Amino acid sequence: MAVDFSKYIANIPDFPNKGIIFRDITPILQDGKLYRAATHELAEYAKKRGADVIVGPEARGFIVGCPVATELGIGFVPARKPHKLPRETESASYDLEYGSNVLEMHKDAIKPGQKVVICDDLMATAGTLHATKELVENLGGKVVGAAFYIELVDLKGREKFPDTNIYSLVQYHGS
Amino acid sequence: MAVDFSKYIANIPDFPNKGIIFRDITPILQDGKLYRAATHELAEYAKKRGADVIVGPEARGFIVGCPVATELGIGFVPARKPHKLPRETESASYDLEYGSNVLEMHKDAIKPGQKVVICDDLMATAGTLHATKELVENLGGKVVGAAFYIELVDLKGREKFPDTNIYSLVQYHGS
Repeated sequence: MAVDFSKYIANIPDFPNKGIIFRDITPILQDGKLYRAATHELAEYAKKRGADVIVGPEARGFIVGCPVATELGIGFVPARKPHKLPRETESASYDLEYGSNVLEMHKDAIKPGQKVVICDDLMATAGTLHATKELVENLGGKVVGAAFYIELVDLKGREKFPDTNIYSLVQYHGS
Repeated sequence: MAVDFSKYIANIPDFPNKGIIFRDITPILQDGKLYRAATHELAEYAKKRGADVIVGPEARGFIVGCPVATELGIGFVPARKPHKLPRETESASYDLEYGSNVLEMHKDAIKPGQKVVICDDLMATAGTLHATKELVENLGGKVVGAAFYIELVDLKGREKFPDTNIYSLVQYHGS
């Protein structure tokens, strides 16, 4: 029953930078049965966590999170890069290896008290998760879980969120 | 039965530039029933067209197309902005009002002969559709349809593709 999704992740050395192994989920997406199965696993998790809404950061978080929302029949809220959302926004920045990025959400995207599960493709140092969680909380929402296709365990993203339930389909150890 | 999705699209004047009315689909996404209904309409269309795979251009094409793929249990292929895809890519450029953009797809993303429906949020002058269609065809796929939440009819995008079947949930006349 349980699918070993790691068999369908392509491992690309030295992308985007030397020394990084890029974990490419496009082979899962290209296979309708696998994409649906991965979506279903995350949807079951989000349902158990009592999610009212799914939030996904741009852009792979849309690919992972949107079908989870429609499977459950709950709303999807995008956390977008700057200047993409047309109405009044809340913003949060996060650090990258070099420099920083900003994510934005519409101020009316989350209703106070709504339970949110954040979905994305990969958790590494968890900077994106940190910014997305901050946005949700600043709008009055409660992050009841975070779900990923892939977790890079040795980067210890999980340890930064002792109070947040985190789920991943595939765990990599080592760099 | 039929939902009037236009009631749930926010119309934002002068975004991103003066004189443009931005058609904001986020209120549809935030409402689980509406997002699922819009997805279902596009999935029924893609099924009738005999789609083997859904292609969506970054980034709102992911939001629209991904749940269509999982509803049908068929694959999803992202057409991405440059330097995002880690393996060998095919690329195509398209013109914007000022300058141009580039989209890329992995060279092995489409199998020769596969039937593709392209999904995106909005068709205006159809530059994105043109580039996405070119990518699919260069990889040996056949575009059997294109589906949008919104069509700006007076910009005549549809007339540029006399041989392509095009479907939209909501049509706007005027600018």
